[in-house]
Amino acid sequence: MSNGIGLGPGREFDIIRDLVAHWGDRAAGIGDDAALVDVPEGERLVVSTDSSVEHVHFRRDWLTPSEIGYRSAVAALSDLAAMAAQPLGVLVALSCPEPWLAELPNVAKGIGDAVELAGTRIVGGDLTAARELVIAVTVLGASPAPVERRGARAGDLVYVTGALGGPLAALTALRSGRVPTPHARARFAHPVPRIHEAQWLARRGARAMVDVSDGLLGDAAHIAAGSRVQLVLDLHPIPTVDAMRPIDAARSGEEYELIAVLPSPVDVAAFAGEFGIPLTCFGRVEAGAPGVEAYVAGERVASGSGFSHFS
Amino acid sequence: MSNGIGLGPGREFDIIRDLVAHWGDRAAGIGDDAALVDVPEGERLVVSTDSSVEHVHFRRDWLTPSEIGYRSAVAALSDLAAMAAQPLGVLVALSCPEPWLAELPNVAKGIGDAVELAGTRIVGGDLTAARELVIAVTVLGASPAPVERRGARAGDLVYVTGALGGPLAALTALRSGRVPTPHARARFAHPVPRIHEAQWLARRGARAMVDVSDGLLGDAAHIAAGSRVQLVLDLHPIPTVDAMRPIDAARSGEEYELIAVLPSPVDVAAFAGEFGIPLTCFGRVEAGAPGVEAYVAGERVASGSGFSHFS
Repeated sequence: MSNGIGLGPGREFDIIRDLVAHWGDRAAGIGDDAALVDVPEGERLVVSTDSSVEHVHFRRDWLTPSEIGYRSAVAALSDLAAMAAQPLGVLVALSCPEPWLAELPNVAKGIGDAVELAGTRIVGGDLTAARELVIAVTVLGASPAPVERRGARAGDLVYVTGALGGPLAALTALRSGRVPTPHARARFAHPVPRIHEAQWLARRGARAMVDVSDGLLGDAAHIAAGSRVQLVLDLHPIPTVDAMRPIDAARSGEEYELIAVLPSPVDVAAFAGEFGIPLTCFGRVEAGAPGVEAYVAGERVASGSGFSHFS
Repeated sequence: MSNGIGLGPGREFDIIRDLVAHWGDRAAGIGDDAALVDVPEGERLVVSTDSSVEHVHFRRDWLTPSEIGYRSAVAALSDLAAMAAQPLGVLVALSCPEPWLAELPNVAKGIGDAVELAGTRIVGGDLTAARELVIAVTVLGASPAPVERRGARAGDLVYVTGALGGPLAALTALRSGRVPTPHARARFAHPVPRIHEAQWLARRGARAMVDVSDGLLGDAAHIAAGSRVQLVLDLHPIPTVDAMRPIDAARSGEEYELIAVLPSPVDVAAFAGEFGIPLTCFGRVEAGAPGVEAYVAGERVASGSGFSHFS
C-alpha cells in the first residue's frame, strides 16, 4: 500500500490496518511496496483491471456498501472467468471521500466476500482521499490455456450461461422508484463470476469466450470481431428472469454470465446439475463479415458489427 | 478494457482505440477481457497498484497533463523498483471527467513515456466516466529474488540514491505562487523510477529496500518495522537539491529514490558512474526496538517508530 497524501500517512496506515484486520485470512502479504504472487509452472498469467465509480457504476441508495464492494470485485473477477483463468490474487485501490470512510469496512467486507467466493485473496492495494468513491480492482489469474475471443470458427455453436435480464429489470424498477423483485435484485446486487463454469467449458474445448458486461449482443460482437466471424443468434431459447422478453434481456448489462463458443454440443444437463444454472445453445458461427445477427422465431430483431450500436 | 457505463460503449471504445493508437508500440494485447503476461521461468511475480487523484496527488495548474500521466505511472513503477523487480507490464484504469477527455491523449502520452522509460508495455486497462480524474496504475514485474523490507540486520549499512528535496522545494514554491527552480521542478515533474539502480543494489546483496514516497524518515521506518531493527541515520551527508537542509529534504515525499540496506560497503563511485546520480551511505542498522533515530552533526534531530509521526 502506498502513499495517499490526502489522508496523511499516519491516518492512512491506521485505516489500512483496520481493513486488513477485517479481511483476516482473505488478505495476505500486504505491507511491502509490492506483493509477491506465484504463477503455477507451465501456466500463463492473466490480468485485468476494472474501476467502479460512484454515480456511474453504483448509487448508494440502490445498494448497500457491502454490495457495492462485492459488485466491484465481481466485475473484475468476471474478466478472469471469461478467460477460463483460476484467480491467484486481487489488488484493491480505493479512492475514498471523507463521508465514505465510516462505511469503508463494509465496502471491504463485500470485496472480501467476492474474493472468498472466487477462492482467492487480496494481495495488495492502495488507499487515497478523493471526492467520490472509486474502487479499482485488479485481478491476477492463471491458466494453462486461456480462452481468448479470437478462436471461434464457422460451424461452432454459441452458448450462454444462466438466465439473463435480472440486472436490467432491477435497474428499470429502481430508476422508476419501484422495488425490484427479489430475483431481479439478487441478480443485480449479487452477480456471480462464473469461474468454475468457465473452466468446465474450457475443458470441453471452448474456443472463444466473453463475459456479459455490456449486454449479450454487444459482447457477442466482441467475439465476432475478435474471431472475424459472423454469429447468428436465436434469442428465443435464452432463459430470462421474471419472464422478461429475450430481446430485452439481451440488452441487460453487468450480468457476468458467459458467452462461450464450442466446437460441438456439450451436456447441458450435466452443466445444470453441477452448477445449478442453465447452459443454453442459442446460435452458431458462420463465415462472413464479422458481426452479429439476432433472430426471434425466425424474424431478424437485431444486427450489428464490431463496436457499433445495434439497430 | 471493460464496461464504462458513463461514456457509453460506442464512445468508450472510440476513445480507447484512440489512446491505444497514441501508445503505438507501447501498448500490446489490449482488447480481450484480460491480458496475458509471461513470467520468466524461475522468477517470482511482483505486483503493485497505485492511484493518483486530482486535487489530492496533482493539480492541473502545477503540472501539464502529460506530466500528470507520467508521474502516476512512475509512482507505481517505483514500487517495482523498490523490490528490485524488472517490469513486465502495466495496466491503466482511467476514471475521467468530461472536461478532461480532450486532454486524455496527453495524459496517455505521459503514461507511455514512463512505461517506455521503464522498458515495459501497457497490457490492459479500463476507462470510465467520473467526476474527477483518477489514474489507477497496476504494475507487474518479476525478479528471481525480490528484495523486501524485512531483511535488514544489525551491522548492515543504509544507503540512499540521488539527491533529495526537489519535490518539496517545488511544492513549497508552487504553494506560495512562486516559480520553482528548474532543478526542483524537474525532480517534481519528472521523477525517475530507479529500476536499474535497484537491480544493481540487489546484485550487491541488498537485504531490504523501500522507495521514498512519503519522506526519507517515514519510509526508513517501514524497513525498521519490517525488519524489526533500529536504523540510526546521519542526515548530514545526504545530497540535496538547491542546497536544502538535509533535515528538510528528509521530509520530502514523492522522491522515488531508494533506501537500500546492504551488508557491506559498495562502490559508490561505480554507481555514480553508471547511473549519473549519487549513492550515499547515511546510516547503520542496530539491534533494538524497531524505529529510526536521525542525527545531524551528532545532534539527534528526529526519532520515531513504526508508522507514527516523527517528533
